Amino acid sequence: MTSTTGSLDPKDPESAISAAALRCSNRGRWGEDDVLGTLNFLTEDKRIAGAACVRRGVAFSLAQRFDTNGPQRGWRRRTNPVHTMLTSGLDAEFGPPEFPHGIGGADDVIFMPLQASTQWDGLGHIFDHGRAYNGRRASQVVTSEGDQLTGIETAAGRIAGRGVLLDVGRVVGEGGELPDAFAITEAHLEETIAAEGPSASVGRGDLLCIRTGQLARTRREGWGDYAGGPAPGLSFTTASWLFDREIAGVATDTWGVEVRPNEFEVAFQPLHQVAIPHIGLFLGEMWDLDALGDDCARDGSYEFWLTAAPLPVTGAVGAPVNPIAVK
Amino acid sequence: MTSTTGSLDPKDPESAISAAALRCSNRGRWGEDDVLGTLNFLTEDKRIAGAACVRRGVAFSLAQRFDTNGPQRGWRRRTNPVHTMLTSGLDAEFGPPEFPHGIGGADDVIFMPLQASTQWDGLGHIFDHGRAYNGRRASQVVTSEGDQLTGIETAAGRIAGRGVLLDVGRVVGEGGELPDAFAITEAHLEETIAAEGPSASVGRGDLLCIRTGQLARTRREGWGDYAGGPAPGLSFTTASWLFDREIAGVATDTWGVEVRPNEFEVAFQPLHQVAIPHIGLFLGEMWDLDALGDDCARDGSYEFWLTAAPLPVTGAVGAPVNPIAVK
Amino acid sequence: MTSTTGSLDPKDPESAISAAALRCSNRGRWGEDDVLGTLNFLTEDKRIAGAACVRRGVAFSLAQRFDTNGPQRGWRRRTNPVHTMLTSGLDAEFGPPEFPHGIGGADDVIFMPLQASTQWDGLGHIFDHGRAYNGRRASQVVTSEGDQLTGIETAAGRIAGRGVLLDVGRVVGEGGELPDAFAITEAHLEETIAAEGPSASVGRGDLLCIRTGQLARTRREGWGDYAGGPAPGLSFTTASWLFDREIAGVATDTWGVEVRPNEFEVAFQPLHQVAIPHIGLFLGEMWDLDALGDDCARDGSYEFWLTAAPLPVTGAVGAPVNPIAVK
Amino acid sequence: MTSTTGSLDPKDPESAISAAALRCSNRGRWGEDDVLGTLNFLTEDKRIAGAACVRRGVAFSLAQRFDTNGPQRGWRRRTNPVHTMLTSGLDAEFGPPEFPHGIGGADDVIFMPLQASTQWDGLGHIFDHGRAYNGRRASQVVTSEGDQLTGIETAAGRIAGRGVLLDVGRVVGEGGELPDAFAITEAHLEETIAAEGPSASVGRGDLLCIRTGQLARTRREGWGDYAGGPAPGLSFTTASWLFDREIAGVATDTWGVEVRPNEFEVAFQPLHQVAIPHIGLFLGEMWDLDALGDDCARDGSYEFWLTAAPLPVTGAVGAPVNPIAVK
Repeated sequence: MTSTTGSLDPKDPESAISAAALRCSNRGRWGEDDVLGTLNFLTEDKRIAGAACVRRGVAFSLAQRFDTNGPQRGWRRRTNPVHTMLTSGLDAEFGPPEFPHGIGGADDVIFMPLQASTQWDGLGHIFDHGRAYNGRRASQVVTSEGDQLTGIETAAGRIAGRGVLLDVGRVVGEGGELPDAFAITEAHLEETIAAEGPSASVGRGDLLCIRTGQLARTRREGWGDYAGGPAPGLSFTTASWLFDREIAGVATDTWGVEVRPNEFEVAFQPLHQVAIPHIGLFLGEMWDLDALGDDCARDGSYEFWLTAAPLPVTGAVGAPVNPIAVK
Repeated sequence: MTSTTGSLDPKDPESAISAAALRCSNRGRWGEDDVLGTLNFLTEDKRIAGAACVRRGVAFSLAQRFDTNGPQRGWRRRTNPVHTMLTSGLDAEFGPPEFPHGIGGADDVIFMPLQASTQWDGLGHIFDHGRAYNGRRASQVVTSEGDQLTGIETAAGRIAGRGVLLDVGRVVGEGGELPDAFAITEAHLEETIAAEGPSASVGRGDLLCIRTGQLARTRREGWGDYAGGPAPGLSFTTASWLFDREIAGVATDTWGVEVRPNEFEVAFQPLHQVAIPHIGLFLGEMWDLDALGDDCARDGSYEFWLTAAPLPVTGAVGAPVNPIAVK
Repeated sequence: MTSTTGSLDPKDPESAISAAALRCSNRGRWGEDDVLGTLNFLTEDKRIAGAACVRRGVAFSLAQRFDTNGPQRGWRRRTNPVHTMLTSGLDAEFGPPEFPHGIGGADDVIFMPLQASTQWDGLGHIFDHGRAYNGRRASQVVTSEGDQLTGIETAAGRIAGRGVLLDVGRVVGEGGELPDAFAITEAHLEETIAAEGPSASVGRGDLLCIRTGQLARTRREGWGDYAGGPAPGLSFTTASWLFDREIAGVATDTWGVEVRPNEFEVAFQPLHQVAIPHIGLFLGEMWDLDALGDDCARDGSYEFWLTAAPLPVTGAVGAPVNPIAVK
Repeated sequence: MTSTTGSLDPKDPESAISAAALRCSNRGRWGEDDVLGTLNFLTEDKRIAGAACVRRGVAFSLAQRFDTNGPQRGWRRRTNPVHTMLTSGLDAEFGPPEFPHGIGGADDVIFMPLQASTQWDGLGHIFDHGRAYNGRRASQVVTSEGDQLTGIETAAGRIAGRGVLLDVGRVVGEGGELPDAFAITEAHLEETIAAEGPSASVGRGDLLCIRTGQLARTRREGWGDYAGGPAPGLSFTTASWLFDREIAGVATDTWGVEVRPNEFEVAFQPLHQVAIPHIGLFLGEMWDLDALGDDCARDGSYEFWLTAAPLPVTGAVGAPVNPIAVK
């Protein structure tokens, strides 16, 4: 397996980003007031088609577990979720009765960064030179009180449609896994589609899941630097492919969708800088695609009905999600 | 419209509860180790049937928004969710550059009780005389570290199937709403099914949504005591009906599923005490069924494909959810 | 008792504020890099003098309790503190042994706004037309990552010195309480000092405590709008008095130090706008001065040793504190 | 320097603990209802004597900073504090005006385990075979709603008195530091007192600070396993010494006061098991004693006025504190 990033000048991310942003812009495509970006591609007919993918009735959660034993290490104050009980079964069994007729209850709370585990990046998550999706000024979209326009709640009822798994780890990698720092190019994506067959076609309105295998490796070897360290992922050069396919969203089993280290000498997530503010593309991160990948390999069908409904936290720039794939 | 609770002795909740618990027990039905309760009814064939309900491709989020402007008032330390930004668009536009090549980012965190807004009660949420689902000791199921057996993560990939809306508010109420303290009986449920027609049939493995109209009223009049005060809801006497129908779960647009005040003189959520530990039934609370109800009234079809995937917080006894109905 | 606010034009807060800011400016007084403001007045000799106030050895906590039953109602996402257990005595007594040789432990966590209860406002809490203390640009002092210069941790070891109680509620009010909306003027302060006698002299480096009696009333009548509603408090016109006395800090038993409603027709905490960015004055809010007030009235001595050490949260613009007065 | 733990049988912690508990019991000493333990020793005359230690007026904060860059690693869900802004100076300078007349404000929140950084262990923190301080059943003292009797708020106004620093690291260690796993015995304590001179006498009601130097080492080398790993600290055998001296509290610059690994083959904090439930002794952890230690070494005086007022979180079994020493 080989990975090429084509003609990128590793010393000049600014030029590459601005060129990609120009080529791959959906600015104004759905009007000045649009808050949905590529979710506009996920129309009702796409849902009807997606529902036809339910053939065996088998369901998969694509979420990791939300708890303290997660990958976060505090970078940018991103800790792992902390779940605590307000009352427990011990109170119910041994504590003073809180309620009549023998009923007891347990309750709980959580504190977590919204990007702690399996999540969607919303359109307010990333800016390009101070500009958010649709050319808006970042400061007028996301204040300290949250995203005033494109908060994740605007997408609350939208993200249900046809899902497609491109198991690049299985097709291109060895042992089902791509190594860290492996950049997935357009060629790898097309190779995977070809290998998987017709069910893996990718088109307008689809919710694309790309499995690299890194999570499987992490599960085996420990978190290490899963959250932010080296990882396989999409090459910056796939921006055009993502744009041209008119997909509704793309998710991976890695922390940040993109190959890490990034393909420029000094860089930080350049594909995000094109994908979110210019394409208006929803990015899913830290999804668990392993069981789904195994099933797809078994039955040869890589499409499914996918519901990936973000928790509608008002004004959130991203949100945890428990995506459910049904085949 | 009238509401009768039959032969309940309002002075004797203990006897009524123990009788209902005896009649409506799924203890041992799926084995000693079972952690899924009525989700066992939601089999793959049910999902295939459910997916066939997708006809027009229209999707509805059944979640309320998660924010500080919610119904909670601190009872049992249940506050409303607090969402704060780690970084905002103002930092990206005006702050010192954090990253190279003009990329800026916003991040956020949340603190919330898991029962703060739209949620599923898990099987570890309620106990009967110190016993949890399947006869387990409460203290051995839910410790201060969370639910060790029936944590909501065990249901992470399960809750996708056929949904049915019984819009009791519209059929039995006036102006689409039942008054607070109105007890919905088996007769009201059957009357609603009959009025709605064949698409509203309720059977094994279904995810039942019961709309009372209280949320619509609350939206108009303010939260008031929505979280814990008087409310329309299921009569305690519906336990048998819920058990016999073999549904996978039931959700309402109220804080606590049950009619409030409860139908005994001194009582607290007696139907929960039967439904969760004995039936093993998943209860959904504070769902927003209004837009879906309008749509069903328009097209005359009350069934849909429902994905209601709880956020898989490890060990949680309940979890926030953004349920998505697709018709 | 009467309250006059002198020659204020209630329609023109801007002019009054800018005039007061000009007159009462400590900008540059302690150098360009200063982060301590009026804490510079609290020198070592002042501490030696303060320690001499310890005569009987009696100690008072001036903090309210930190819990869910507090005054906050969610305004600006200021909720009450939520305290939850990580493990409890029930786990220790009835749960599975976590540790050897019979040791058991309980642990807990808290979530709270730093302004939820008894607290100090730090110098980064308030800005005047985008300028922070010492003329700095607000955006360069307090970013989303906190106060980069005047974070409360810079004051961590400073706030211990001579405290003085002016029990204006007792001297000027009826039944020991000033009514809501009562503006405390310089005349009231001087009247109180005169009534209390020599121990109540106020001078350079002192930590001034002003008791209005509102908390006592709230304790009797319930929180109501304690957090943000009508309250007795300092008149805007006291800015010069506070500045001229060269005190190190001033604290009250109200939510916001200032009289509420404020003395201009359209206004929000105008004295803060002078006191914090221009005087560099530390403001203490929601202190419990009732027991201390009773004691001072009994023994006739209104001075004490005061340690009011803020929790040194890095970058905090305010911080909870448990002030301890010793007489 | 040598460390001996005398006649302890490393295979039999249970016997050693029960013997020490029997010898060092304050159970019933201050009545059945007592909630203060050794704070009863800190009487008003002790405060008068303590205040006399203020000679130069110099003040020291003995708190570490509370932020994400702390020692915690998630063990028992103990994370580091997470501080986030509700509004910032960027909002004030560049955001839409929130308030009239040019005033702007910043606000913040925190989430933290109460044992995350510099703190006091309260009397409800540790149990011996299911028993809390004064022989109470753990389950009746600390429920999921917190400590119902000995919550840290009961000590809110108490902890101000004479402090003494025993800089064992400086006297017994090399380069001012004891190595990890070094057990401080009674002999080391007495050797330190003798070396420091009369100001270091330790008696009834004193607040004892023991500096090991581990924090200084950690500051130089990074957190490593500071929170829970190997550390110098008190030998289990010092229980009698601590009991006989009738001190009010003892604090160290380490995570857990005791030597780690503990002196039994299979053990976890055995001295806690005696000190808290039997002696009723308040233990302070993660205090920063370095600057104070330097000052004491310079001026030869090891006593000071110490105010260590815990944040009075209702029902807390421990609490963060910013201790202030004044000499």
